[in-house]
Amino acid sequence: MTRAYNVEFKVRTNGKGTYEITQKIQEIVRQSQISSGLATIFIQHTSASLIIFENADPSARADLEAFFERLIPEETDYFTHTAEGSDDMPSHLRMTLTRTSESIPIVNGRLSLGIWQGVFVYEHRRHSHSRSIAVSIIGEVQ
Amino acid sequence: MTRAYNVEFKVRTNGKGTYEITQKIQEIVRQSQISSGLATIFIQHTSASLIIFENADPSARADLEAFFERLIPEETDYFTHTAEGSDDMPSHLRMTLTRTSESIPIVNGRLSLGIWQGVFVYEHRRHSHSRSIAVSIIGEVQ
Amino acid sequence: MTRAYNVEFKVRTNGKGTYEITQKIQEIVRQSQISSGLATIFIQHTSASLIIFENADPSARADLEAFFERLIPEETDYFTHTAEGSDDMPSHLRMTLTRTSESIPIVNGRLSLGIWQGVFVYEHRRHSHSRSIAVSIIGEVQ
Repeated sequence: MTRAYNVEFKVRTNGKGTYEITQKIQEIVRQSQISSGLATIFIQHTSASLIIFENADPSARADLEAFFERLIPEETDYFTHTAEGSDDMPSHLRMTLTRTSESIPIVNGRLSLGIWQGVFVYEHRRHSHSRSIAVSIIGEVQ
Repeated sequence: MTRAYNVEFKVRTNGKGTYEITQKIQEIVRQSQISSGLATIFIQHTSASLIIFENADPSARADLEAFFERLIPEETDYFTHTAEGSDDMPSHLRMTLTRTSESIPIVNGRLSLGIWQGVFVYEHRRHSHSRSIAVSIIGEVQ
Repeated sequence: MTRAYNVEFKVRTNGKGTYEITQKIQEIVRQSQISSGLATIFIQHTSASLIIFENADPSARADLEAFFERLIPEETDYFTHTAEGSDDMPSHLRMTLTRTSESIPIVNGRLSLGIWQGVFVYEHRRHSHSRSIAVSIIGEVQ
């Protein structure tokens, strides 16, 4: 028998950077009782995004941050969308270059992630935010 | 009871830029009668893409366009794939850096988008095109 | 009747570049016997990714490679995550700027791809690797 299961939750962020939510998603998959199917994680914002990234060595996440600061600097002179602060337009571009949703197969009741893969909220604003995440799980219950 | 619902539609574009399709997708979700599940929007092209982006202030979309014109200029001297015009290879790269599909949870019969989120076709070619979008909706009918 | 179908397979890569897997995915869709629904392809790695790209002219894929070599050079001096070689941190960034999963609607028992679209594993490391791909297919069996 197949079913659809939806949950929303919040993640508190404290400035630019990555916040791991892998365990929270695994827990939602377990609660859904779906053993075979698909989990989709969706962030309801345009100034934060999602990534699946190396979760072992924090230096990789520091370099990711350094790369995006150089690719899209806050002080970019041709930006016109600047009313909400110098970190706002870069946040929309960083979001566009990463992902608003991630979809992960579920096998034997668990996310079929690779050994080094973690799911992260990627916050692009400097101030603290409460970010809303919607999770959709569809598949077969055993 | 779960079901799968598929629809295709066309979007007319008139040059580089973003074309909002949020209302069209909401309408398809309503027609599907699926109240809980997942909507996936897929663009069947390699020189146009999809983004979920800030839909309130058009200046953010103008800056997005300006950013991509600088990141991947048409006159890039090392491109070899140039037979179809100077906007062709940049279109494939812009598409690769954005998204071919977007997946959005459906809750209570509606897309669970955040308040500022819109779904856009992102056209990367200079001339007019008719772009094909395939939508897949899966979930529970009430 | 709806069902969920999961398969994993391996792809052998031999250095940086793109490896087409479209026919393999079409074959899995056929085996699933699902005629209407959604196929999600997921790569279980953080130094390789997936793209849907122009599959007719190899010069477009050569230019893609040249673009990423310039956007994220191996010899970038501010990278700190360098213990696994100079191609490691660029591989995480290339992966983040492309996709870990691709979702494609299934219509009449086939992927509803556009005429020029192919699904590719995008390898970002210099050495040979065996890459694991998880496929989730959900939808209606006729």
